[in-house]
Amino acid sequence: MPTREVSARIDFEVTEATELEFQIAVAHRRGVLVEEELTFTANGRDVAATEFAASHGGRIHVLRDVAPTSGTAWYRARIEVQDGRDDAGTAGATADLHDRSLYLRPSRYVPVDRFYPFAASEFGTADPIPAERPYETAAAVTSWVAKRMAYLPVSDSHTDAADTLLASAGVCRDQAHLVIALLRALNVPARFVAVYAPGCDPMDFHAVAEALGPDGWRVYDPTGLAPRNSLVRIATGRDAADTAFLDNHGGSLNLTGTTITATVPGALPADDPAERVRLP
Amino acid sequence: MPTREVSARIDFEVTEATELEFQIAVAHRRGVLVEEELTFTANGRDVAATEFAASHGGRIHVLRDVAPTSGTAWYRARIEVQDGRDDAGTAGATADLHDRSLYLRPSRYVPVDRFYPFAASEFGTADPIPAERPYETAAAVTSWVAKRMAYLPVSDSHTDAADTLLASAGVCRDQAHLVIALLRALNVPARFVAVYAPGCDPMDFHAVAEALGPDGWRVYDPTGLAPRNSLVRIATGRDAADTAFLDNHGGSLNLTGTTITATVPGALPADDPAERVRLP
Amino acid sequence: MPTREVSARIDFEVTEATELEFQIAVAHRRGVLVEEELTFTANGRDVAATEFAASHGGRIHVLRDVAPTSGTAWYRARIEVQDGRDDAGTAGATADLHDRSLYLRPSRYVPVDRFYPFAASEFGTADPIPAERPYETAAAVTSWVAKRMAYLPVSDSHTDAADTLLASAGVCRDQAHLVIALLRALNVPARFVAVYAPGCDPMDFHAVAEALGPDGWRVYDPTGLAPRNSLVRIATGRDAADTAFLDNHGGSLNLTGTTITATVPGALPADDPAERVRLP
Amino acid sequence: MPTREVSARIDFEVTEATELEFQIAVAHRRGVLVEEELTFTANGRDVAATEFAASHGGRIHVLRDVAPTSGTAWYRARIEVQDGRDDAGTAGATADLHDRSLYLRPSRYVPVDRFYPFAASEFGTADPIPAERPYETAAAVTSWVAKRMAYLPVSDSHTDAADTLLASAGVCRDQAHLVIALLRALNVPARFVAVYAPGCDPMDFHAVAEALGPDGWRVYDPTGLAPRNSLVRIATGRDAADTAFLDNHGGSLNLTGTTITATVPGALPADDPAERVRLP
Repeated sequence: MPTREVSARIDFEVTEATELEFQIAVAHRRGVLVEEELTFTANGRDVAATEFAASHGGRIHVLRDVAPTSGTAWYRARIEVQDGRDDAGTAGATADLHDRSLYLRPSRYVPVDRFYPFAASEFGTADPIPAERPYETAAAVTSWVAKRMAYLPVSDSHTDAADTLLASAGVCRDQAHLVIALLRALNVPARFVAVYAPGCDPMDFHAVAEALGPDGWRVYDPTGLAPRNSLVRIATGRDAADTAFLDNHGGSLNLTGTTITATVPGALPADDPAERVRLP
Repeated sequence: MPTREVSARIDFEVTEATELEFQIAVAHRRGVLVEEELTFTANGRDVAATEFAASHGGRIHVLRDVAPTSGTAWYRARIEVQDGRDDAGTAGATADLHDRSLYLRPSRYVPVDRFYPFAASEFGTADPIPAERPYETAAAVTSWVAKRMAYLPVSDSHTDAADTLLASAGVCRDQAHLVIALLRALNVPARFVAVYAPGCDPMDFHAVAEALGPDGWRVYDPTGLAPRNSLVRIATGRDAADTAFLDNHGGSLNLTGTTITATVPGALPADDPAERVRLP
Repeated sequence: MPTREVSARIDFEVTEATELEFQIAVAHRRGVLVEEELTFTANGRDVAATEFAASHGGRIHVLRDVAPTSGTAWYRARIEVQDGRDDAGTAGATADLHDRSLYLRPSRYVPVDRFYPFAASEFGTADPIPAERPYETAAAVTSWVAKRMAYLPVSDSHTDAADTLLASAGVCRDQAHLVIALLRALNVPARFVAVYAPGCDPMDFHAVAEALGPDGWRVYDPTGLAPRNSLVRIATGRDAADTAFLDNHGGSLNLTGTTITATVPGALPADDPAERVRLP
Repeated sequence: MPTREVSARIDFEVTEATELEFQIAVAHRRGVLVEEELTFTANGRDVAATEFAASHGGRIHVLRDVAPTSGTAWYRARIEVQDGRDDAGTAGATADLHDRSLYLRPSRYVPVDRFYPFAASEFGTADPIPAERPYETAAAVTSWVAKRMAYLPVSDSHTDAADTLLASAGVCRDQAHLVIALLRALNVPARFVAVYAPGCDPMDFHAVAEALGPDGWRVYDPTGLAPRNSLVRIATGRDAADTAFLDNHGGSLNLTGTTITATVPGALPADDPAERVRLP
């Protein structure tokens, strides 16, 4: 797979002392080589962040006790995917059981407890049943969401998948939440991934869904904004509550600018919707 | 149209002094003859209720300052519909404008503001547009709701039409709310009617939707529990908030029994879903 | 009471054929003299609106079949309040019963069914009980809302009083909804009024709450943005769903400008929070 | 600390083939000795469950491909707490950062994103700020919730902490969610624990909140149904979505009986609300 180059620059202004968490560094994953640079400045000086591990290779960088000031987070990485092997075979049955259990549960933006009847009514009558053919079900759900949703910034930090179903519109995050809600309701484990997305236009942080089947996790994107096989994983979790690129605990903050880049050498690869794509 | 006979007996126990409102008497409507009896007893004695007019011929009977006691409301009526003429011609254009405005608005259990995109996505692409053929649209929406909803008591006093869409289930009140929400979202004025329903099984108070078109209001019932042309109108409003058969203001109350009857002489008439039925 | 002069200019652009409803004309009320001018233009020409009566003297002006075009609504009025007599005495007991029943019910933005326990827990333990001293209760609730809410534009067309309670912020419409929700939950009938508000800064359409007590309706405004005794009633209803200054049925529309004025001659009167003010 | 003895018997009837997950076994925790027995029977025979690890020592037992049948889960354990040492010192700073990040996030039943303004308005004005004295804040919030909530079964599987705030009532699960929501909103990490609770009356599975401070996690219980220092941890997570004692994936199931026991030898210890209690 090709090399990808990504970067993020986040300018912020702390107006009341706070603690900041960043999820902008590429996840540590088997067979993914990352050469990277990450710096934080506040008040014109470099400041040190503490890194700790989030789930599925994700990494969180925290700046504690940030006094009111302006600052910048700057990240740059060159990624090479050396090894296409799947998690499924290596991680083994117990990890699968854990993930299967976790990613069927309701979460903040994916209240699957409210979706069972609607999902059954819309998708559930097929034979074999949806959960027995998870990848086909994920493709069908993704296509349904793609067809019904307008890509529009109508959501806010309270918008969950039930709101998005009614709104029939949303950005990448909302559409991924709706795919995940319908899949979990059909008994297909599904999770949320924040990614760098070469080809995304306008370029920004992007978000997609992953569904778990017999061969492991596969990636689905109802927005079709970027080819799936060039995506670079940042953070993985139940929904957007787990993957915010910037979290602010206790104080106040304004974002004054974000610039994201993500490229592959040469032309972007095509994305065949019928293909099952694994996100390393 | 045939004679109908209806009755309601409501036994209650006031546990904290309160004011009670009943909407159990048949509405006063043009061409509808009602011979009726209505008595209230509390603590073993007859008590007097005050009647006042609600919208569209509805009548509310209020008992003020009811001390803790057990009581009964007893209603019995014989209804003859003498005159099938429509409201539309008689009430005239201004009443139509008023109703049209009122019954397109969002209400407690019909938050139509949340339904526009979903309704457009599910029904809105037809030509001519749904609002230009209101009765056909009402029939199509009713049929869609009937097909997707299970008749199950999954709702409570907070359940609105958006909840019902996700639950894919509800009782008559919930299904009527969902029909009304979709219709208003498609720009077809729609309202809620509490009725006596000969043939309803199990027998109980029933609720249906009405849609406004060029010939006036027509009645739609996704539950199909009773033939529409035998229904008897009690209360009419925006949604179930306007038609509760018993409202309690300020104190506490237990219902200890309700018995409803509604009959027509001879066999029940058939209900052809394709027919447009006016509810007197 | 002093003369008031008000005006509203609303510029709009219809992008898809629609029907428009305006509620910008001052309500017809006993003892209120209105000298006014109201014109609508579309595509550079005068167009005729149809007026019909809304509740409590409100008037709705409707433009049917407005083709895509730019247009303007222009209203100007001079109001004199000749007569301070109350509705209560004149309208009589039956109207009171009707209003009392109507304005205790849940409505779209005032889901009082969800507020009973919270209101009881926050306000309900007093003796005499809140419903027996409605004006004192309304003053206490208004003061509580004023203290807890920031005046911030955090709401949208889906925001109800429960959302506002959590958000602890909102504009006049939201704060009025929260006052009304708490009052209805305490068994005090309460309604929503859209008004012209001399002194409001920034000048805009304004909204307040009214509470019903033994002397009739009295007006409460948690925002304190304008003296209550200079307000001019436009529309009255259950909540903002009944009083939108512009409703669009079926098509699409952009607002391109609104300019509101409202003045009294000389200095604004003071508003003593302890005073009970009747809005004519 | 005293020995505790606990047991759970869960009888169920599978009506459509499914996969079952049980969280009824006591968590594996440092210094907690557990001697236990766990058996599953279906259709009269013993069946084998697969155990996998959940977070914080929790254990999930899964029965896959359970055909329609009646069955029983039977668990019995004797617990001795040998070692009162805290996690905080041993687990170290990185684990703390991880937990701190995780348990400030919004989750399904704890939509903290909706609680910031309300919590700030109710608790936030103190000096020092609430997050700087997490245990005092947790005690204050617990006491506030205890005072405002009735212990009533008014909730269902969709009820979140915002619903509970309005309802002013709920069972242990709901009250714990509300405590957690207010704490996270005040920047105090908080999580949900399902426990065996000697002394609980009526005896059932119980749920409490934990708050993170400089000395580690401490337990808070607004219901006061059982002394905190006798609780036995089963499952720990963001909210009740992570700790269901029985989850059903894909099929249908009826619970036909649950019997829980939990005892300590001799008299129950007293629970001093002012004491900070660590749950092993």
